[in-house]
Amino acid sequence: MPQISEMGKIIPASPIRKLVPYADQAKEKGIKVYHLNIGQPDIETPPIALEAVRNMKLSVIEYTPSGGNHTLKVKLAGYYQHLGINIHEEDILITTGGSEAILFAFMSTLNPGDEIIIPEPFYANYTAFAVMTGVKVKTVTSTIENNFALPPISEIEKLITPATKGIVIINPNNPTGYLYSKEELEELAKIIKKYDLYLYSDEVYRRYCYDGLKHFSVMNLPGIEQNVVLFDSMSKRYSECGIRVGAIITRNREILATALKFGMARLCPPALGQIAAEASLDTTDEYFENVYNEYIERRDFMVEALNKMPGVICPKPKGAFYSIVKLPVDDADRFAKWLLEDFSYNGQTVMVAPASGFYHTSGLGKNEVRIAYVLKISELKKAMETLAQALKEYPGAQQA
Amino acid sequence: MPQISEMGKIIPASPIRKLVPYADQAKEKGIKVYHLNIGQPDIETPPIALEAVRNMKLSVIEYTPSGGNHTLKVKLAGYYQHLGINIHEEDILITTGGSEAILFAFMSTLNPGDEIIIPEPFYANYTAFAVMTGVKVKTVTSTIENNFALPPISEIEKLITPATKGIVIINPNNPTGYLYSKEELEELAKIIKKYDLYLYSDEVYRRYCYDGLKHFSVMNLPGIEQNVVLFDSMSKRYSECGIRVGAIITRNREILATALKFGMARLCPPALGQIAAEASLDTTDEYFENVYNEYIERRDFMVEALNKMPGVICPKPKGAFYSIVKLPVDDADRFAKWLLEDFSYNGQTVMVAPASGFYHTSGLGKNEVRIAYVLKISELKKAMETLAQALKEYPGAQQA
Repeated sequence: MPQISEMGKIIPASPIRKLVPYADQAKEKGIKVYHLNIGQPDIETPPIALEAVRNMKLSVIEYTPSGGNHTLKVKLAGYYQHLGINIHEEDILITTGGSEAILFAFMSTLNPGDEIIIPEPFYANYTAFAVMTGVKVKTVTSTIENNFALPPISEIEKLITPATKGIVIINPNNPTGYLYSKEELEELAKIIKKYDLYLYSDEVYRRYCYDGLKHFSVMNLPGIEQNVVLFDSMSKRYSECGIRVGAIITRNREILATALKFGMARLCPPALGQIAAEASLDTTDEYFENVYNEYIERRDFMVEALNKMPGVICPKPKGAFYSIVKLPVDDADRFAKWLLEDFSYNGQTVMVAPASGFYHTSGLGKNEVRIAYVLKISELKKAMETLAQALKEYPGAQQA
Repeated sequence: MPQISEMGKIIPASPIRKLVPYADQAKEKGIKVYHLNIGQPDIETPPIALEAVRNMKLSVIEYTPSGGNHTLKVKLAGYYQHLGINIHEEDILITTGGSEAILFAFMSTLNPGDEIIIPEPFYANYTAFAVMTGVKVKTVTSTIENNFALPPISEIEKLITPATKGIVIINPNNPTGYLYSKEELEELAKIIKKYDLYLYSDEVYRRYCYDGLKHFSVMNLPGIEQNVVLFDSMSKRYSECGIRVGAIITRNREILATALKFGMARLCPPALGQIAAEASLDTTDEYFENVYNEYIERRDFMVEALNKMPGVICPKPKGAFYSIVKLPVDDADRFAKWLLEDFSYNGQTVMVAPASGFYHTSGLGKNEVRIAYVLKISELKKAMETLAQALKEYPGAQQA
């Protein structure tokens, strides 16, 4: 039999999704599983988006343009302008989710053997897209002790070699919930300019910044306009992860024209998802206020509940809806599996994403997990009780 | 400014889509453009699929499983079994269109530098996916004189080197409309087995075989079960190209498990498209009879109209809804552009896909175009009149 590819052998299974079969087994045994592992909010999709889908008038669901529907791009440009980010339709390529935005941008700008720098922990799928592009990931490590702030720029600069082509930041961060300050980004811009690197900025959680903090987009950093490539997605902003609509935003027309060639090869982004996306851009402020308040309440509840558990450390996230949480366990991968395979409390268990999958450096995050606060308070409460009990019963518990 | 990638430089723009800006310009001048260039049928999407979308009950459009919805896979397996192809849910990975099926299968099974053999002309986007995987395409040429039949297996065998890992066939063929016979496929199976190659079979036009000919799937070739990887798509079968739902079908579980890791990286195929796809599988035979009759009528009309034009040769396609047509012109690329930029007849023009983009061997297809019969007879008639007039007026016309 012919062989699997080398890439297929090394591409990692998603740390968020690879435990799904164990969760399915637990559910088959009648155990209720609280999903703290995945960024799938239970928040309702804006009614305006659902209605647009239900009222869709197409009698032939045709291909759309490869770069996305004109009307969607115009409206998305308006959304950016409203945020004070001067972007036009010509700066936008609609993609099949933020995932494809990353893949097309990497493939358009990076060669096999090139290096990119990403502060770790980072959204695990970047590793997969780097593998698909043959690119080497180098990391600076942000730490829970420092609330996952960007390490000093000097640390990043030390990693730069002639093979370095870009830096990736996720802001607000998944999985840490860290929000980069304008000052941190201005520091970053200096080395982007100095070494003429690409700055890939993943801002899909832009809408969710807390405690009065304001999101600052790298799009508004002067002097590196041609270096900045933004990844956007409708998924989290409008709680419509399944529509698979994202975008590459860049003022660098050469990148966009190149990415469009990749886009032509796959024909078009999803037509139905684009209908939902376009309608979503009219979501009311009231919807967002409710969602915002809901997330704040969940975050505050969860952070408090976690920090009350002996040996648990949970920094307070400033954005998105995740936190990396330190647990008093020997091995979070083993613990996460044990939760699904061997544990239940009042017929319940919890599913968490082991943090090791979010670190690139082997051995890091061994006693950390990513927890997403995407459940209603009533469910989150039960999940926290269950987790607290699990930590008491887990045979691999470590003394704090 | 940092550089565009090498891959980005060499990946070709789609020969079907790259002329779109010229068509847009013609439309802006008020010229009616008949699209014979693209496989976008005007056939209505089955009402059952449209209704499923309009009645969708989701209040949160969530991620689906990375490999696609369970219910869709079960139903798709049933569809295959009904066709006499023994496939189970576990043999299926749902992808974002057939395009992603090709990309994931290539990335899961091929290494940079590997070679694949494809009879040319072939669906142009295979070149892009080969570029994305770093794979070298080698071709045997099928000819219009021979109605685009598979060249003798000995011709294919001559191309096999130690780097050869697979053969791709498109059956029925896009762009030629050729339908492979069971005997041809059995011959092909012999060398697949002899050299232990992958056989990638693109059967997305399976439903449209004409003149009483029956489609034979490579899935039913004995002895190469672990070598066969099928690409499927809902797009053409149910005239719903925009939903972006396709599938990898293979009995080789290692390929499927590897492709699923790529699938996890992009999270999931489109949720709304999967709703349409699942409903589509209940499309009535009556719908297909009508569509079938419509295509037959269009094909027969078009083939006759084209062959009447001096110097034009159009073989009668046995499947799909395309034909490669030989025109008495110096250069079909120039002719296609001229049609949009410099020609109109009664305020109309036609858009065709130059065939050069479907040949891998440079210089082939220079006076051929791909024509899709995806327009109503009334429109097709005007399109043919317009094309006939264009051939009379085109300054680069060649004597037959």
